[in-house]
Amino acid sequence: MSDRLIYLPLGGAGEIGMNCYVYGYGPTGRERLIVVDLGVSFPDMETTPGVDLILPDISWLIERADRIEAIFITHAHEDHIGALAHLWPRLKAPVYARRFTARIGTMKFDEQGLPRDAITTVAPRPETIEAGPFRVQFLPMSHSIPESSGLIIDTPAGRVVHSGDFKLDPDPLVGEPFDPAVMAQIGAEGVKVLACDSTNVFSPLPGRSESSLPPALNELVANARGMVVATTFASNIARLRTLANAAVANGRSVCLLGRAMRRMVQTATETGILRDFPSTVAPEDAAQIPRENLMLIVTGSQGERRAATAQLSRGKYLGLSLKDGDLFLFSSKTIPGNESSVNRIMNAFSEMGVDVVDDAGGRYHVSGHANRPDLEQVHGLLRPQMILPMHGEHRHLREHARLAEARGIASAIPVNGTIWDITGTAPVSAGHVETGRVYLDGSVQVGAFDGVIRDRIRMALNGHVLVTLIIDEEDEPLGEPWAEVMGLAERGRTGAVLTEAVEGELEQFLNRADARTLGDDDKLDDAIRRIVRQVCMEEIGKKPEVTVVVSRLME
Amino acid sequence: MSDRLIYLPLGGAGEIGMNCYVYGYGPTGRERLIVVDLGVSFPDMETTPGVDLILPDISWLIERADRIEAIFITHAHEDHIGALAHLWPRLKAPVYARRFTARIGTMKFDEQGLPRDAITTVAPRPETIEAGPFRVQFLPMSHSIPESSGLIIDTPAGRVVHSGDFKLDPDPLVGEPFDPAVMAQIGAEGVKVLACDSTNVFSPLPGRSESSLPPALNELVANARGMVVATTFASNIARLRTLANAAVANGRSVCLLGRAMRRMVQTATETGILRDFPSTVAPEDAAQIPRENLMLIVTGSQGERRAATAQLSRGKYLGLSLKDGDLFLFSSKTIPGNESSVNRIMNAFSEMGVDVVDDAGGRYHVSGHANRPDLEQVHGLLRPQMILPMHGEHRHLREHARLAEARGIASAIPVNGTIWDITGTAPVSAGHVETGRVYLDGSVQVGAFDGVIRDRIRMALNGHVLVTLIIDEEDEPLGEPWAEVMGLAERGRTGAVLTEAVEGELEQFLNRADARTLGDDDKLDDAIRRIVRQVCMEEIGKKPEVTVVVSRLME
Repeated sequence: MSDRLIYLPLGGAGEIGMNCYVYGYGPTGRERLIVVDLGVSFPDMETTPGVDLILPDISWLIERADRIEAIFITHAHEDHIGALAHLWPRLKAPVYARRFTARIGTMKFDEQGLPRDAITTVAPRPETIEAGPFRVQFLPMSHSIPESSGLIIDTPAGRVVHSGDFKLDPDPLVGEPFDPAVMAQIGAEGVKVLACDSTNVFSPLPGRSESSLPPALNELVANARGMVVATTFASNIARLRTLANAAVANGRSVCLLGRAMRRMVQTATETGILRDFPSTVAPEDAAQIPRENLMLIVTGSQGERRAATAQLSRGKYLGLSLKDGDLFLFSSKTIPGNESSVNRIMNAFSEMGVDVVDDAGGRYHVSGHANRPDLEQVHGLLRPQMILPMHGEHRHLREHARLAEARGIASAIPVNGTIWDITGTAPVSAGHVETGRVYLDGSVQVGAFDGVIRDRIRMALNGHVLVTLIIDEEDEPLGEPWAEVMGLAERGRTGAVLTEAVEGELEQFLNRADARTLGDDDKLDDAIRRIVRQVCMEEIGKKPEVTVVVSRLME
Repeated sequence: MSDRLIYLPLGGAGEIGMNCYVYGYGPTGRERLIVVDLGVSFPDMETTPGVDLILPDISWLIERADRIEAIFITHAHEDHIGALAHLWPRLKAPVYARRFTARIGTMKFDEQGLPRDAITTVAPRPETIEAGPFRVQFLPMSHSIPESSGLIIDTPAGRVVHSGDFKLDPDPLVGEPFDPAVMAQIGAEGVKVLACDSTNVFSPLPGRSESSLPPALNELVANARGMVVATTFASNIARLRTLANAAVANGRSVCLLGRAMRRMVQTATETGILRDFPSTVAPEDAAQIPRENLMLIVTGSQGERRAATAQLSRGKYLGLSLKDGDLFLFSSKTIPGNESSVNRIMNAFSEMGVDVVDDAGGRYHVSGHANRPDLEQVHGLLRPQMILPMHGEHRHLREHARLAEARGIASAIPVNGTIWDITGTAPVSAGHVETGRVYLDGSVQVGAFDGVIRDRIRMALNGHVLVTLIIDEEDEPLGEPWAEVMGLAERGRTGAVLTEAVEGELEQFLNRADARTLGDDDKLDDAIRRIVRQVCMEEIGKKPEVTVVVSRLME
């Protein structure tokens, strides 16, 4: 049987988040594998209440752990690296990343007590990692975090370029600029497959450079009267520097608030990426500085409840608070789903008399992803035989595939869990694997279909009624049934106390119930459940979740 | 004591939704009152899981029901009329509205078994309703629903113009066009107070006319190959007509899906507002029509789970389904907070091979609210002494107040629950009243601070553990404690079954417990609760909600 090259996304293809892509090469069913990225998604109240993190379901990989040659992490955003320390113990393959990314990964390994030496720091191309049949180089790409990289993956079947997250920034302020000549050179060497970021495929205009922001940000800070507070993603080191420079240029001291913010700046400094960040003051010192001479740079641009932005919107945080005449800047975009939280915060600041500036006008933020014309430029420079759209919801992948096909490049819509044979000149569907999402819930992992989260959602929507009942040795009720409610109105439409109405109806039922019912736990449970839901429907117009506990006294 | 004119928003000022505004005139504390609008807000999973509707807390009004002269409803959007039938029984004042609005209100009254004759249909100005010291006229305004109106409220202290929701549309396709001469005339008669819609104060460009849409919509439909499905707000009668006309012009039959859609078209037709809507086909007949000759106009533009759009995204609905080559158009804007639901639907359509078109480019939808330059135009035409910004979140009200003050017009930020004396030349703060939100939950009303919804959110975040325990006549445990969990992982970190771990720890506690603890329900409850939370923290890293039921056998 001849060898084949396969591609299998396990996360990130059909969603924006929890990226995890697999490449394989070898005889069918015995391919040697490499994994690109192990990221997380973030939970929301609507679909995943109480969940801490969402991980890709990598059961397929775990069953084939002995065939994994290596794990490559393209960059240190949580949707690419966040699951590494949670899932690595099930894979135990060597991990490769560039300096900054490796440093962040090592911190995560330290926190979980995992061996640091599993992570190897790699220089960008031409340094090459040999991983079974794969020869892999890190290709610097501009994005919104230092050292983001694509991967050049050479295989016996030809070259794959895995774009990672990228934009085409000729002047990213921190890190390597986009150089079309380099990309054209890689293209000239022959690219078989381009697996490519699809996030901004619907954005019709060319992306803007990080270097377009300093003038506007500087002007904003120059015109501010009170304290200035700015938030952006902690990992956007270039932006942090631009903001800090704007502060210093206008006679303001800089104070970083939020653990992630300090950690990122420290890591970027230690790895030599950030050489000229202004000196900062500690929060306790900042409180002593006149507000017109101070700028805070803080975490929580997405409205995260416990981050600095949300804390400041609720009042004092680490001795600092905002007031009338201050300025709060969101140098960020609100990720869909976070609008309500961000809006609440903006209004809380408005109530304090703080001027809130966001990126509505496009002056204070640029995206880290390639827009539609940028994608077209990359397609043209690399001239791959086929394009595998990744890093996008289904509609993004579909649009990106169309864009490729419009140029005459073979494509497909390779969603999570689909295996593609990419040995030939076009992607060929080669099967499906079971995949999905796993929830990190507290300290344990819960399957998306275990029913645990479904039950939480049901309790949240319907409330919960508990009924306890004691049955004596003769199968007769001992005392009366007892009902407790949680998350339901105390009184019904008629003014009756809900628990009393439930208990009254249950008593009547028990008085009528025959020995066969009273002697059968399942029958009893069913009947009680039905009565509770019926009484609640009549009294309060809702059918709650019901838990029945029948205790039987034994002789 | 001299008479005064007061303004008190009870809903809609500090939020977009549940509009309810009160004006009063008379001696302090004995003012005669009129109410403008009784609207609802819609719940979300994050803050109000399981709730059906959010109503303004009108306790202040209920206590003063004998002083209410009348209730005026400006238009039939749910955030202005949705609470009418739920709250009217507590107020029982006569209701005035224009024809279309009154018809919608009457349907709601019929559903709740309330007297139809409480609602009086009023013609627009110059028809005038005398309501105690108030003389009120309905002023036609263009918006996104028929017969939306402002109110001209003449009082002994001067004239108030209450804008209602409006835009300045010279050609709204359905209903009265904006006429600057009329507004200038009203201004020339002298306006003391303008209470004004603030929704789009941050939109920097002049609003666009509904009449700008037909060419683009027509072109879109003309180029479609398969079935076309379009969604918009059911109440946007002008848009429905534009969409239906585009269908007919391109040889397509029109089918309306969704109860609200059919009801609105029927009401608009019966009231004579809609005279030339194309004839429609029933869903069962639509299924027989070739897809290239069919257009569905459907409810659910905000991704509502049970509306037609969501149903179609899940598969067949009323015998109709979408497939490869069909077109789905969102002729609408996604309201903040609904992005995730709408995105899920777009991706589901994408998976079916359906082309999804939304308003990203601004071609297929226009807003129903006045933008910043439009507001400035109205300020200039009416030339009020003071402006009370309403219908907006705090940041909108604040920005609108600034806009007014920049023109030299007195203003304030009159949020829900603040009373303003507007007798003089500028608004003067005159106290606060208790206000807030009431939840319609099933068939009962629940206060926002009753703890009911808080408990639901806690169960959703933390899960729920129930412990039952029987204590015999001698205050000794009878049998073993029993634990049930809902919404928690079955097994802990160590692989132990969570309920067994909890029960084991509780048994040990009961073996150790002294008579004083076992005899005291509160002590027992506290101790059990603490142990359960501790075991769960160790096993699964979460502290759940706990309900303890101790049953005591009596002699």
